[in-house]
Amino acid sequence: MSVERDRQFTGDDRAFPVAGTAPSVDPHFERVAIIGVGMIGGSVAAAMRRRSLASRIVGFGPAPSVEDAVGLGLIDEGAERIDDAVAGADLIVLAAPIPALPDLLRRIAPSLSPRAVVTDCASTKQSVIAAARDALGARAGRFVAAHPIAGSERSGPGAARADLFDGCKLMLCATETTDADALATVTALWVALNAEVVPIDAARHDRLYAELSHWPHAVAFALSGAVADSEFADDALRFSGGGLRDTTRIGASSAELWADILLDNRAAALASADRFQRRLDRLRQALQHADRQALVDELTHASRWRQRLNGAA
Amino acid sequence: MSVERDRQFTGDDRAFPVAGTAPSVDPHFERVAIIGVGMIGGSVAAAMRRRSLASRIVGFGPAPSVEDAVGLGLIDEGAERIDDAVAGADLIVLAAPIPALPDLLRRIAPSLSPRAVVTDCASTKQSVIAAARDALGARAGRFVAAHPIAGSERSGPGAARADLFDGCKLMLCATETTDADALATVTALWVALNAEVVPIDAARHDRLYAELSHWPHAVAFALSGAVADSEFADDALRFSGGGLRDTTRIGASSAELWADILLDNRAAALASADRFQRRLDRLRQALQHADRQALVDELTHASRWRQRLNGAA
Repeated sequence: MSVERDRQFTGDDRAFPVAGTAPSVDPHFERVAIIGVGMIGGSVAAAMRRRSLASRIVGFGPAPSVEDAVGLGLIDEGAERIDDAVAGADLIVLAAPIPALPDLLRRIAPSLSPRAVVTDCASTKQSVIAAARDALGARAGRFVAAHPIAGSERSGPGAARADLFDGCKLMLCATETTDADALATVTALWVALNAEVVPIDAARHDRLYAELSHWPHAVAFALSGAVADSEFADDALRFSGGGLRDTTRIGASSAELWADILLDNRAAALASADRFQRRLDRLRQALQHADRQALVDELTHASRWRQRLNGAA
Repeated sequence: MSVERDRQFTGDDRAFPVAGTAPSVDPHFERVAIIGVGMIGGSVAAAMRRRSLASRIVGFGPAPSVEDAVGLGLIDEGAERIDDAVAGADLIVLAAPIPALPDLLRRIAPSLSPRAVVTDCASTKQSVIAAARDALGARAGRFVAAHPIAGSERSGPGAARADLFDGCKLMLCATETTDADALATVTALWVALNAEVVPIDAARHDRLYAELSHWPHAVAFALSGAVADSEFADDALRFSGGGLRDTTRIGASSAELWADILLDNRAAALASADRFQRRLDRLRQALQHADRQALVDELTHASRWRQRLNGAA
């Protein structure tokens, strides 16, 4: 296990170190159930298969995703019923849209093997932890909330990639009631998938990713929508440079997926929105007043931080 | 000459087709003066040299850029005085910051050879055309306004690249008084540099790039500034994914350069700002009211346009 608490601890709240003994070999699962076989669920399956971490991978989800995932060779079989997928599985990976997770957790509860470990990949963590507590009750300790920082503006099993998680961060949100062996299992899984596992408190996670991902998606959508409204909506397709393409890239993401993420993390996203609006107002006022010094100061404040991000790349 | 009026004409205002006969070979210049040898000026020099379009390339500009450009082999020599750079040159390329252009045009006027062609690379076109008219008077027809759609968030001669313009659009803003042979020369230059030459009216150009480039830069700066203000300014350097990096990439650009571009194109940039703010307000209100359908509609409007941009890539 390559996780060290001191180096990877992040949080002013409470975070929980990875417990348990460090396995010296990859974990192995007899039967893995992937619930929701889109880009992320399909990539988990493909990445596990590449490392031979599972004897059998079963998928469950709406058509045609599961059929496509079988056809693409990401999973061994699709299950007609969620109980069939989950029965006998030693690992259940929830990779469905956020609003579906509470119901899915309730539906898997009756079929869970005693030693099964349940994890997820959602972009927000507080709500799924609360849903697992409600749905799994005394067995909520078997659920380990996780969020791989990987993906793209694409979606569906056709966008799955076995190398999607290579080198990515895996944010791991244990709670006081998480079972130590379940935590060790999920940690070992992601270490085997080449991710860097980072323990983080769930509330802090949600604020962090509101700022670093959820609100920036909203900005990219708003900018894309504004260009679409302009007289240049068509010309833009031909005449834009790399700047617009990069700034709006994630504005091509799934509208439903991101609406649900933003709604699930609404308070934090709105706090990020306020911060953004303050900077936007200052910039716009400097431009309105043709105040060059104020404008240069504003852009310098921004570019200094962004140049640090380049340096950290 | 690969320019065809019908295919490449863009504009609801007036655009001017490329005039003159089509040369079947690359143009050749005995002496080229590059005024302002940063990333763009240095790249013009490097690209011309790669195609052997010039016998001698002389640079003029503030230290240490010119010395660096000589050291990097981008230009043959640096001139101490602008008259020395311009005297005898058959092509003068202005690649200095926008606020410097009026004064530079006045300073080159006395030394211009009768058949010299003057062009520029600025991101805005109306102000430099007006400045050329004022500074060059009866010889303003020798000035051909041009804007290569290429660059990066970097700056200075060290960021110059001989292939910077390969495949890029070159927006060419002729006026009623542009000399036909000067227009043909600048067109041939950029065709030889592997750019696609697009004639466009200057006013339309400025509105188009306010929308596609100048205001998106402002948004990327504002988003970068907001993250810098947050409790996550440092964590972001380590925990952000590709989305934040792409959305804010151009926020690492030169603050002075972009302040000057935004100020020079203020009215159009503020119109783009208004359009953006309207979309941002709608998105934020949908989020505030937890109105999922309104939020999905808003994001769908945006993502449909952005997905078209992917298709046009």
